[in-house]
Amino acid sequence: MCRRRISPRRGFWTFPSGFLECGESGGEGARREVLEETRAEVHIEGLLCVIDVPQISEVHLVYRGTLRSLALAPTEESSEVTLMAEAEIPWDDLAFTSIGESLRRYFEDRRQKQKAVHTLDLRTAPPGENRDELAPSVCGASR
Amino acid sequence: MCRRRISPRRGFWTFPSGFLECGESGGEGARREVLEETRAEVHIEGLLCVIDVPQISEVHLVYRGTLRSLALAPTEESSEVTLMAEAEIPWDDLAFTSIGESLRRYFEDRRQKQKAVHTLDLRTAPPGENRDELAPSVCGASR
Repeated sequence: MCRRRISPRRGFWTFPSGFLECGESGGEGARREVLEETRAEVHIEGLLCVIDVPQISEVHLVYRGTLRSLALAPTEESSEVTLMAEAEIPWDDLAFTSIGESLRRYFEDRRQKQKAVHTLDLRTAPPGENRDELAPSVCGASR
Repeated sequence: MCRRRISPRRGFWTFPSGFLECGESGGEGARREVLEETRAEVHIEGLLCVIDVPQISEVHLVYRGTLRSLALAPTEESSEVTLMAEAEIPWDDLAFTSIGESLRRYFEDRRQKQKAVHTLDLRTAPPGENRDELAPSVCGASR
């Protein structure tokens, strides 16, 4: 988990995430973001969530992975980088709705000993969450 | 299934597909494309495939759905629109690699009486397929 050093949602917690670059697969982008934001090398296992966020014209692809080493470090984008057990997740201080929704599904799958691909649409998410704080997309859709 | 009236791959067969518009969820985009290309109204059930096509900087989201009516008709984009049984699929005349890969998984799931979400990366697809014929993406990646 990373504490964001940058806007939006500076100071709040997230797992590594970002925009896909041209020529990347989703898994390659996920691996690159982990490296950029935590210095860690990961092996990407597969999709955990496909999350529609139409209010900001985004689709979030969230992946499961395993760390290849424990060499984590703060970066330009992350003021703190740390491993957390489920009980340590700062649920009230997560940066974006999709982070919490993904973590909940990850832990629930682990309890059920399954690896499902979950789909959800954040426009229908319960109100009162952080979804209005998400970064505006390249489409320029209004918040 | 639709016979393409437009480039690329004019004259070849596809199911309805296209680019997501701003403000749409993936399922809403799928429903819109079916309407635009076949005049049919569908209910979207859920994801069938998430297909990385990094060589053209695309990710294809493919959905299962059920027709709300049989009112199909040719359109500006489709010179023929028709329902096909599995045995009628023109496997050698499909427009794009991801169409055949998705249809194969759909029919296999139906035989297995399951509804899985499949992931694949077309960069690692077997050679000799139609992948070089895919439309260039908005990133301007070369073919």
